[in-house]
Amino acid sequence: MSRFVPMRFVDVHIEGRFWRERLETVLARTIPSQHVQLAEHGILESLTLPKPPPPLRFPRNEHNFTVQVFWDSDVGKWIEAASYALSHRRDPEIEAKIETIIDDLEKAQAPDGYLNCWYLQREPEKRWTNLRDNHELYNLGHLLEGAIAYFLATGRRRLLTMLERYVDHVRETFGPGAGQKRGYCGHQEIELALVRLYRLTGERKHLELASYFIDERGRQPHYFDQEAADRGDDPKKFWAKSYEYNQSHKPVREQDRVVGHAVRAMYMYSAMADLAAELSDDSLKRACELLWQDVMASKIYITSGLGPAAANEGFTEAYDLPNDTAYAETCASVALIFWAQRMLHLDLDGKYADVLEQALFNGALTGLSRDGEHYFYSNPLDSDGRHRRWAWHTCPCCTMNASRLVASVGGYFVSHSDDAIAFHLYGGIATSVTLKSGKVTLRETSDYPWSGDIRIELEPEQAAEFTLKLRIPGWSRAAKASVNGQAIAVEPSTTNGYLSISRKWQAGDVVELDLPMPPERVYAHPSVRMDVGRVALKRGPLVYCVEQVDNAEGPVQRLRLPRRSKVGIKRRSDLFDGIVVLAAEALRLDDREWSDTLYRREPPAEERVTLTALPYYLWSNREKGSMTVWLAEA
Amino acid sequence: MSRFVPMRFVDVHIEGRFWRERLETVLARTIPSQHVQLAEHGILESLTLPKPPPPLRFPRNEHNFTVQVFWDSDVGKWIEAASYALSHRRDPEIEAKIETIIDDLEKAQAPDGYLNCWYLQREPEKRWTNLRDNHELYNLGHLLEGAIAYFLATGRRRLLTMLERYVDHVRETFGPGAGQKRGYCGHQEIELALVRLYRLTGERKHLELASYFIDERGRQPHYFDQEAADRGDDPKKFWAKSYEYNQSHKPVREQDRVVGHAVRAMYMYSAMADLAAELSDDSLKRACELLWQDVMASKIYITSGLGPAAANEGFTEAYDLPNDTAYAETCASVALIFWAQRMLHLDLDGKYADVLEQALFNGALTGLSRDGEHYFYSNPLDSDGRHRRWAWHTCPCCTMNASRLVASVGGYFVSHSDDAIAFHLYGGIATSVTLKSGKVTLRETSDYPWSGDIRIELEPEQAAEFTLKLRIPGWSRAAKASVNGQAIAVEPSTTNGYLSISRKWQAGDVVELDLPMPPERVYAHPSVRMDVGRVALKRGPLVYCVEQVDNAEGPVQRLRLPRRSKVGIKRRSDLFDGIVVLAAEALRLDDREWSDTLYRREPPAEERVTLTALPYYLWSNREKGSMTVWLAEA
Repeated sequence: MSRFVPMRFVDVHIEGRFWRERLETVLARTIPSQHVQLAEHGILESLTLPKPPPPLRFPRNEHNFTVQVFWDSDVGKWIEAASYALSHRRDPEIEAKIETIIDDLEKAQAPDGYLNCWYLQREPEKRWTNLRDNHELYNLGHLLEGAIAYFLATGRRRLLTMLERYVDHVRETFGPGAGQKRGYCGHQEIELALVRLYRLTGERKHLELASYFIDERGRQPHYFDQEAADRGDDPKKFWAKSYEYNQSHKPVREQDRVVGHAVRAMYMYSAMADLAAELSDDSLKRACELLWQDVMASKIYITSGLGPAAANEGFTEAYDLPNDTAYAETCASVALIFWAQRMLHLDLDGKYADVLEQALFNGALTGLSRDGEHYFYSNPLDSDGRHRRWAWHTCPCCTMNASRLVASVGGYFVSHSDDAIAFHLYGGIATSVTLKSGKVTLRETSDYPWSGDIRIELEPEQAAEFTLKLRIPGWSRAAKASVNGQAIAVEPSTTNGYLSISRKWQAGDVVELDLPMPPERVYAHPSVRMDVGRVALKRGPLVYCVEQVDNAEGPVQRLRLPRRSKVGIKRRSDLFDGIVVLAAEALRLDDREWSDTLYRREPPAEERVTLTALPYYLWSNREKGSMTVWLAEA
Repeated sequence: MSRFVPMRFVDVHIEGRFWRERLETVLARTIPSQHVQLAEHGILESLTLPKPPPPLRFPRNEHNFTVQVFWDSDVGKWIEAASYALSHRRDPEIEAKIETIIDDLEKAQAPDGYLNCWYLQREPEKRWTNLRDNHELYNLGHLLEGAIAYFLATGRRRLLTMLERYVDHVRETFGPGAGQKRGYCGHQEIELALVRLYRLTGERKHLELASYFIDERGRQPHYFDQEAADRGDDPKKFWAKSYEYNQSHKPVREQDRVVGHAVRAMYMYSAMADLAAELSDDSLKRACELLWQDVMASKIYITSGLGPAAANEGFTEAYDLPNDTAYAETCASVALIFWAQRMLHLDLDGKYADVLEQALFNGALTGLSRDGEHYFYSNPLDSDGRHRRWAWHTCPCCTMNASRLVASVGGYFVSHSDDAIAFHLYGGIATSVTLKSGKVTLRETSDYPWSGDIRIELEPEQAAEFTLKLRIPGWSRAAKASVNGQAIAVEPSTTNGYLSISRKWQAGDVVELDLPMPPERVYAHPSVRMDVGRVALKRGPLVYCVEQVDNAEGPVQRLRLPRRSKVGIKRRSDLFDGIVVLAAEALRLDDREWSDTLYRREPPAEERVTLTALPYYLWSNREKGSMTVWLAEA
């Protein structure tokens, strides 16, 4: 069996109402408004290297660090997101804006190919002196991903060619050779961009450079120690205290615990999985599997949020998953999708697709508002109402991670090998796949994630034998399937989470899949101290929360859900163009008979109410109020 | 009836085992070890104004602020604590250390009386240019309290005289007159120190200066605005964002909501209550009462911790009382004791003594370790075990607040007026009070707080009529009392929390008070979202917690306490020289049948265990482990 490769997003037409709405919102509102924000916040101007340099908009913090050092990456990510939009439909206005950016970058690029607007403008003599903190290679990585996307969308190669020159300069600068620096970036990203460049161009030198950065990471003598000493800094005075922060505390193949900054970790693991695939490197694959096991066993929120702590924007101890202070950066969940997709394509094991789906519908999608112009950076699972979406952020990384994800979401639905087609997600798509046996046109129709009734029509150009693999989500029970109305026994035909149907397919064949979606209670491992005595509600891939606007007066944290209370569903056509909410009889603590005291001997009285729960990704799109995912159980 | 005044701590001999142990520990270990720490951390050296100034040990943060600007206050507080110790028993070594400090300060003092070691050494031209941030008057306040305590302990007046000169300089510098600055300190403290100086010297000018600072605070045009503009800073760019941070957002008499930095707030309210008493100022008293009501109704932890947020070291919204991230600075609970004592002496209302006692035994006492050499700065009510006591702190304010409180704890037990004696606390003390009718020797014997059996022997020099007032704590039910074995009906004779016994007292009269101390369950107001479905345990004045070391394996947060489970007491002579723990049948979530998954549909199994609860103030004195105050109720 040949390897499965994902369909390119541009070849997957989104037809279902759920993703159609998100995609249209991103195309029509998010991407244009992000350009406005980049302009308003001085990020676009920074590409012109204005002289004299304007004062910093974001002054250096006590670690002598300013977010402005990674402005190039924000531009790169916007180009990437905008280019995905252009792949859906060309737009001269957006293209003109990208061309202007490329003009600026072209003027800025140094004769030797170096291209980092922060250093070129403000401290040209200091380039490559602080890889640990200053994101030079990270910026290149995002610009490169943007350039590749732009090339694929428009055929225009100018930016890509510029960046290939920059990559050549990087290749000369870094490596084990005489006069080269044995460095790597403090924020991983260049590695996966280089793999992408390799896949586009077929030039092995890009894969080798990515591999060099991954292999070098964490080796002794430690590059960041040497680099700090060269700057005249005390290497021991690293502000983040430990190289766990950027996962360079030991060589990557020796890492088996997920530590440090969550986005850095996810980008690195994604690159490791890429290299494991491209180089058939089992030691990298094994490291990825151990790290995956560690995060899934004890370090991921039910929403797929990652990294509980604000202090390091990252991981702490096993089972440390506070709800109200959860950092759970949107970028980390987006990056988890990248990693999960790569793991999935190593073995086609549905456990990876389960996490991909869960991160997509919950951890990542919550980052983008309904109107497409507001964002969450951190994603608590409990709020008194003070946590709200914002229109922009000092560090706008999450905004463009949301837009580039949604604009390319079609790329996560279907993969194929020579003789098989695998559906990972459902929600209404149409595509054509070319197998060894010929072309097959596919249309998947469903109202997923609101319903688990899925219909797939197949149109092979000529009748052909191949395997159709349908993901049976880990959350589903009692799935049913049929081909042309003939039932299939799901369980015996399902391996690693995929139902395989091998037969000679004819044009007009119809597969139906029924994934029942009863509301479910979910409990956390007893070691998650914050969730003891608490229950969360899920339905299908969606995690639900209780938001104050749907639950009358008082904080929602006053609600308790009796264990025996039946949770039902309600289709609400009046909410967000039609969604499914959950409803259950609950108890609300009553404060009417409390006097001015804050504490007393008698427990509060309780009244019976009907609780309404909303998909988590939709919270904070209406009026301000409290929210919680984990309800006290009575 | 004349006003009640507290007995001086030095006139109250501590005999009971609870406070005797704490006092001896502070005298023998805490105060000497704090001097060692002050030396080791460069704080003592800073008083010598070394030239050239050594590099900062604590570099300026992003707000251009370093904790070193308030090192003088740490020295002042240590002198105060050490002097209280000297009042208990003189010690030539400690006195020599204080004299050395006074030598240094004497050399440092400027000809005009100004005495701030930070400014004199590092930026003499900038004195009085940043009252908002730089603590000059705060430092003076603490030095002054230290000087007064040292004078009272030893009769040595040198430091006090130096500081009176400094106060004179301050009086010339600040005021409404031509050429004067209409300023006040960003961190309140000078005000209550000036009242103390007034009470010592009888010089009204000190009271007037305190009153000036309080009255001026929050007036428009705002002094901190003008001062920032004079420095060339944008007043709008105050790093704390709002003048609520230092309670100067409006004139103090208009304040009715507790806001901002908790220690600043408590020191200010203490000074306001002092001035209300000294000036019979009802508007100040009224403001204090409204602020008291606000904090007690919605902004205080059950432990009397104050200020949930680390960001402002202070208050947030009503009912926002997170347990695991509670800041609840030890200093704030110590300062609450100061405020409560002052409020108590305005009206002799036991509600203030209730809070004083609660803050003493829980919020404040927890700040000092059993060994007397380790501290808590913040006091969460829930921990996974990572929160531990430390030997010193970047900002060591809490260390000396703990030592000065314990070293002077006798001052909180008894007050008297011309013809009445009032007991606020119990625990084994002996003292002599001089009433209009003559001297009365008193001995209160009890094992409080472990037992509520209290015996008071009175020895008037000659038989005399006066009133004995015994506080009946707010937490007590069914108190019983007798005089010479004759029962008294407690309830009818109790007003505002004090049982009054007026009679002709004879030498040898014995009053017995029985305050039953059954273990109690306490519930929080339903609006405290973190405590919904949770219960805390108390006994007498002590709040209990569950610590891992007493509760076998696994985090204590796994325990659930059924509502019908009986909570009993156990006297444990093996623990901390003999304490009372609570015990109850509980349920522990069991993870033995959990696989590697973090979330699942089935609730965890539970096993029956016996839960042991420990007084909160004692936690983190043994091996590392989890702790919680609020238990999930089953």
